[in-house]
Amino acid sequence: MVTDQLSKVFSALSDPTRRDILVRLGEGVATVTELAEPFPISLPAVSRHLKVLEQAGLISRDRQAQWRTSTLRAEPLKEATTWMDHLSRLWDERFDRLDAHLEVMKKQLQDNQTTPEDKEENDD
Amino acid sequence: MVTDQLSKVFSALSDPTRRDILVRLGEGVATVTELAEPFPISLPAVSRHLKVLEQAGLISRDRQAQWRTSTLRAEPLKEATTWMDHLSRLWDERFDRLDAHLEVMKKQLQDNQTTPEDKEENDD
Repeated sequence: MVTDQLSKVFSALSDPTRRDILVRLGEGVATVTELAEPFPISLPAVSRHLKVLEQAGLISRDRQAQWRTSTLRAEPLKEATTWMDHLSRLWDERFDRLDAHLEVMKKQLQDNQTTPEDKEENDD
Repeated sequence: MVTDQLSKVFSALSDPTRRDILVRLGEGVATVTELAEPFPISLPAVSRHLKVLEQAGLISRDRQAQWRTSTLRAEPLKEATTWMDHLSRLWDERFDRLDAHLEVMKKQLQDNQTTPEDKEENDD
């Protein structure tokens, strides 16, 4: 299901180590050992992160000789970016309408500040 | 911490109901009852989703008379979108480099297919 896949992508992105791994994979295919190198965590912990990224479809894992390497997969990230762009546009429209609404409210407030009582007082 | 906030935003986005709530809030401020209306889940369940969105900084919750309303907050979403755009650019560069690398490999493969043995055979 598309929605589920999107949830998995966002869930995979909700961890700083996994985000760093994705940035690192932007430099090229890497083995688990290479990916683990900058992190103060164990190889099995890195493997678990890779499994989450793989299940989200963000990476594919292949065996090259005795090494298991990870490679980026662009499509699910694009889908997530598209969804966020869609939401951003909706929100921008909302904030534009809100600005217009606030202008109307501001005008009403200014008008109310000149109440009939004020007018009468002013008239005196 | 910025990273933590980003993790919270992605985590908040990793649920289809919460994403639908964010889209609904693009139409305007809403009460819990209004937000719960389209979903087959209880009011407390919707409240829990709203709490997650609030902790991620994606919405703010205010009390208007006896109603508690939710409003969008754009900044954290923008930060998350910026991070994803950054990653997308990194990945695009990576795929461009990969394409170039594959071209080189393809050429090498073509050259290897014309091995010295082949050449000798061809020479015969």
